[in-house]
Amino acid sequence: MIIISERINGLFAAVAKAIDKRDSKFIQDLAIRQVECGAQMLDVNTGPGREDAPAVMDWLVKTVQEVTDLPLSLDTPGQKTMEAGLKACKNKVIMNSTTAERKRMERFFPLCREYSTEIICLAMDERGVPNDAQSRAEMAMLMMTTAMEYDVMPDRLYLDPLILPVGAAQDQGKKIIQALQLFQTLNDPPPRTVVGLSNVSNLTKDRSLLNRTYLAMLMGAGLTAAICDPEDEELMKVIKAGEVLLNEKLYCDDFLRV
Amino acid sequence: MIIISERINGLFAAVAKAIDKRDSKFIQDLAIRQVECGAQMLDVNTGPGREDAPAVMDWLVKTVQEVTDLPLSLDTPGQKTMEAGLKACKNKVIMNSTTAERKRMERFFPLCREYSTEIICLAMDERGVPNDAQSRAEMAMLMMTTAMEYDVMPDRLYLDPLILPVGAAQDQGKKIIQALQLFQTLNDPPPRTVVGLSNVSNLTKDRSLLNRTYLAMLMGAGLTAAICDPEDEELMKVIKAGEVLLNEKLYCDDFLRV
Repeated sequence: MIIISERINGLFAAVAKAIDKRDSKFIQDLAIRQVECGAQMLDVNTGPGREDAPAVMDWLVKTVQEVTDLPLSLDTPGQKTMEAGLKACKNKVIMNSTTAERKRMERFFPLCREYSTEIICLAMDERGVPNDAQSRAEMAMLMMTTAMEYDVMPDRLYLDPLILPVGAAQDQGKKIIQALQLFQTLNDPPPRTVVGLSNVSNLTKDRSLLNRTYLAMLMGAGLTAAICDPEDEELMKVIKAGEVLLNEKLYCDDFLRV
Repeated sequence: MIIISERINGLFAAVAKAIDKRDSKFIQDLAIRQVECGAQMLDVNTGPGREDAPAVMDWLVKTVQEVTDLPLSLDTPGQKTMEAGLKACKNKVIMNSTTAERKRMERFFPLCREYSTEIICLAMDERGVPNDAQSRAEMAMLMMTTAMEYDVMPDRLYLDPLILPVGAAQDQGKKIIQALQLFQTLNDPPPRTVVGLSNVSNLTKDRSLLNRTYLAMLMGAGLTAAICDPEDEELMKVIKAGEVLLNEKLYCDDFLRV
């Protein structure tokens, strides 16, 4: 499973402060720590409510790229911010993200083609997140077919069923697993999938336990990638165990150390 | 999810010793501990290679029943041992188990009818455990239809895809998840399912981590019941978290204490 670090995000107060001060060392130390903990991609998000978001994205991307060649996931709904990130990016890029909204697809799929990126497709539209698996699969299908109109083939997409917090929408947990299974039937070979994991435990106690238990369920259902916290050691143990159980990594007695 | 304790089993040296000495207190303390830790049924197994297995099963069942009214899972391939357990049992019973072998079905389904029990059906036959999901589903279907010939309806069955150790048959982990999904398509309402969980980690290090990670995957795939160790606290946390994530128990901040 592909681990995309969620930590370089202006939502976190310490990161927001580092952005305000243009503290490169803080951001670079953070990026290096993510890589050392096992991140295979780094999500980069300027955080909410910044008028200077394009400039911040440019700075963040350049700052992070000085210390790692890992692919970056440029995490913004804003076209200008996305373009600023794309222009600054030398590493492989995943655009995070489009939705099934017509306007957003018309803006983002051409960028995806122009910059030869991959792209995360969120199963929601202007009406919000659907509350069943079938509607999520219909939106995923719409995004897949629309992407193809822009010469973006399905193998460049990551379909995201959109996890909701268990404390707020408890009935969605099972439906998201079903959506993930449905997504994999939409094409051959099965489309890749991704989730923003930590959302499941938003505003709960025992966040790590809920995160890692749900991630195991999603891995069992065929998940390709997760945006999550590689500094969560218990989560990383579950990922390693899950990869062994699913025959994605060879079993050995010391698989946790490998 | 239904938790069936695996601990009252002559395979464990301490239990074998208690059986030899007919040490009721040891067995009863063990049973009480399982219940206190959250077991909802108790598997009872005399252990391998006992010529006096029917007498031991009779004694074990009577001993356990003195301290709990929970359903018992009578765990033996032997017809005489099974009958001894059935005769001794006042609690609700699950017969553990039949396979798809003709001879075993012909012996065990009539007992199931006669004693009004439920029964675990293992997806294997005289040729052994099949190595793909589809063959497991075919065997499950054969057991379902054969059971009906003996007036044992599908709602009295638990279908078991048969977990194999990840260290010995690593390719089976994913196939067992697929089998579990297939089993649920064989009837409407979906047949119930069960696994002997700990087998997945047999002869490995980090047994608890592998057990609980795999159990989360299986819960996500719709598992009904697991024979496992309720004294494993980390496993029990995952079960509670899983039930909350699947909307089987109401979420509250302190769900772990409830």
